[in-house]
Amino acid sequence: MTGQMEYIAALPGAAGTTVTVRGWVQHVRTQGKVAFLVLRDGTGVVQCVFVKSQVTPDVWERFGTLTLETAVSVSGDVRLEPRAPGGAELGASELTVLGASPVDYPIQPKEHGVDFLMDNRHLWLRAPRQVALMRVRHEIEQAIHDFFYARDFIHCDTPILTAAIGERSGLFSTEYFDEGTAYLAQTGQLYGEALAAALGRIYTFGPTFRAEKSKTRRHLTEFWMIEPEMAFYDVHDSMQLQEDLLVYIAQRVIERRRPELVVLERDVKHLEAIVGPFPRISYTDAVATLQQKGSTTTWGEDLGAEDEALLVADYTTPIFICNYPKEAKAFYMKENPEDPRTVLCADCLAPEGYGEIIGGSQREDDHDKLLRRIHEEGLEVDAYGWYLDLRKYGTFVHSGFGLGLERTVAWLCGTPHIRECIPFPRLMNRLRP
Amino acid sequence: MTGQMEYIAALPGAAGTTVTVRGWVQHVRTQGKVAFLVLRDGTGVVQCVFVKSQVTPDVWERFGTLTLETAVSVSGDVRLEPRAPGGAELGASELTVLGASPVDYPIQPKEHGVDFLMDNRHLWLRAPRQVALMRVRHEIEQAIHDFFYARDFIHCDTPILTAAIGERSGLFSTEYFDEGTAYLAQTGQLYGEALAAALGRIYTFGPTFRAEKSKTRRHLTEFWMIEPEMAFYDVHDSMQLQEDLLVYIAQRVIERRRPELVVLERDVKHLEAIVGPFPRISYTDAVATLQQKGSTTTWGEDLGAEDEALLVADYTTPIFICNYPKEAKAFYMKENPEDPRTVLCADCLAPEGYGEIIGGSQREDDHDKLLRRIHEEGLEVDAYGWYLDLRKYGTFVHSGFGLGLERTVAWLCGTPHIRECIPFPRLMNRLRP
Repeated sequence: MTGQMEYIAALPGAAGTTVTVRGWVQHVRTQGKVAFLVLRDGTGVVQCVFVKSQVTPDVWERFGTLTLETAVSVSGDVRLEPRAPGGAELGASELTVLGASPVDYPIQPKEHGVDFLMDNRHLWLRAPRQVALMRVRHEIEQAIHDFFYARDFIHCDTPILTAAIGERSGLFSTEYFDEGTAYLAQTGQLYGEALAAALGRIYTFGPTFRAEKSKTRRHLTEFWMIEPEMAFYDVHDSMQLQEDLLVYIAQRVIERRRPELVVLERDVKHLEAIVGPFPRISYTDAVATLQQKGSTTTWGEDLGAEDEALLVADYTTPIFICNYPKEAKAFYMKENPEDPRTVLCADCLAPEGYGEIIGGSQREDDHDKLLRRIHEEGLEVDAYGWYLDLRKYGTFVHSGFGLGLERTVAWLCGTPHIRECIPFPRLMNRLRP
Repeated sequence: MTGQMEYIAALPGAAGTTVTVRGWVQHVRTQGKVAFLVLRDGTGVVQCVFVKSQVTPDVWERFGTLTLETAVSVSGDVRLEPRAPGGAELGASELTVLGASPVDYPIQPKEHGVDFLMDNRHLWLRAPRQVALMRVRHEIEQAIHDFFYARDFIHCDTPILTAAIGERSGLFSTEYFDEGTAYLAQTGQLYGEALAAALGRIYTFGPTFRAEKSKTRRHLTEFWMIEPEMAFYDVHDSMQLQEDLLVYIAQRVIERRRPELVVLERDVKHLEAIVGPFPRISYTDAVATLQQKGSTTTWGEDLGAEDEALLVADYTTPIFICNYPKEAKAFYMKENPEDPRTVLCADCLAPEGYGEIIGGSQREDDHDKLLRRIHEEGLEVDAYGWYLDLRKYGTFVHSGFGLGLERTVAWLCGTPHIRECIPFPRLMNRLRP
């Protein structure tokens, strides 16, 4: 009697019945006449206990052949076991090898260098910590979709292949039939603005690209961004939305991914501290604070990662730094009517030194001011004709922001390097596997 | 008294109160001493009624200046109006112009050629039909996420930039630092298989690319695909999942996007007919049927669009065509043990001539058979080392499929050309806007 096929995550609900689970061998250990097999199937991990006197000699012998990552099916009785991570264990009676695994499985339970692990990313992903990161990433993604769906935002997909538009340096390019060169989008924002005029409030959710030779732990050449764009939102409305979004995401992870946070050894108190209101600090005040703290940054310069860390050190929630100097920011940000040296923007910095996770602004909605900025930046005006049209035909107050997905995952999971926060990271020296 | 700011979609719930709505002028008309303004704000459309005797002369005069796509705010009393599309209308008292719109707005209420409309895609998106298409697309996307989330599938993002792997022709390429050439992914499947070994059941949701000189109404160079991959699913389990998914999506659109279907003049009966079980027809039987119907297709050839249309003509649900000849399909499909000339695959064809919307298969899980197929296809074995590893270390029965998002939107909306089913389509002669 092999019982019904079950996922490991469902075992506590099947206590007292006989079931079959399938998965891969994570760990084996024999203690005299009892043998233990830790099995993972992607939904969870369960310990299967084989008692020599209670299984056939065949099964006992077969257990002895098991190696790391062998694919097996195990049948047995489900027992509640409060000390087990998933809350249940399996009193095993049958064992079938579905797919063998040679003893040279590359990732052994010892320390490996990151380059080696990255070369074997397709296998490294099976490790408990990596599984936990992927499951939290998944929860964050669904939380974002649910957040916006409940608020009637329209999910829109903006193009990856674009003619010259957007930011200027660090572009990947490809030949595009007879149309010349296409560039891989660094942002969907400009398209998002056109969509906001059609659909009111929208968000994009897709990959973006930066061909930058950055080798920091906070940069990928390919990363995922969520870019909401809201008609009739000013920069303050936008910050409120960002705050609501981040609080919602943190709550979802706390509520639904606690087992993964345990695997990641992430102290939940850091997530519980993510409640509004997030402090809103002007750039000008921020520079004064930095100077008090000994920074040499002067008014007019953009803030670096060290400055950001200094600023956020006093807080347990994210903070907004608002109204940067025009020169430090992109051409499409709206001039601040109260101080035209600055723009109506806000960067959101995560606590614990995780740095910028959101950049956002109110968009310049004055046609002539925007055109002037395009000229000042030396951009090709022709390429921006359609973008200027949005200011010509029924211009509207609007704001938007970009949330970096991997940075958010890294922050909530307490992982210093974002390369582990995406299944197959792309770095300047890594295109494989 | 201007009242609370409301979205048009929320007006029926605000009946009897005074509100302010903001949006763009879709239509104006004056009938003696009553003037009508049809306003859209992305959430819906509402008629605002101005009675000359009940508004100030200023407001009446301002109404006279309104042009298509002017951004305005209108205040007034909400009245239930069963004959109105949204169920309410506004007895207007105030009118403010927020952003003017010159009389040369390119898209006028007359026939325009498709090239002209595509050149003005950023404005065309504001048209009622385009808004409806985007909103249905959005609903389908969220439905897909909800479907998989409820079933504990893990959403994973696979890389766009890849070293040589996957399908072979029609690749966009870009220089990638010192790593040589990177290709834009045509599929995330191979990566999805690695993730299925780590996470059990996963799905990807992202853009894919084909640098093909296709000029049909069913091809884009950049399109979005959903690619689930399931450990321990055989090809039959996978077909059942596809059926469940399509039925769920259709039901969601019927339940939640009926107003959009009305705008699209889509007869709901076609969507209501999408119920299981979907017929499963072997390729061999399909060829026999085609020959009876007069087709010249012979066993061994892939089926073309005309063949597909002939086959599906007898059905109102999608149908599966199963077990194609090996030569007609990709190298990674599992050999059919009952007929090794064929593979364990299934294409899902939509009714009404919408053609293939899903391609799927059980994957070859035998290391040596897969290696032989890679050799036979003349693929570079080195590039597939990590993919072969999945068959070396704990190989497992698994299946997956790819659902084309734009084709699904086109089918459910009854739109013949998929170029209208994505915000900014990319075609071989279209990279702008």
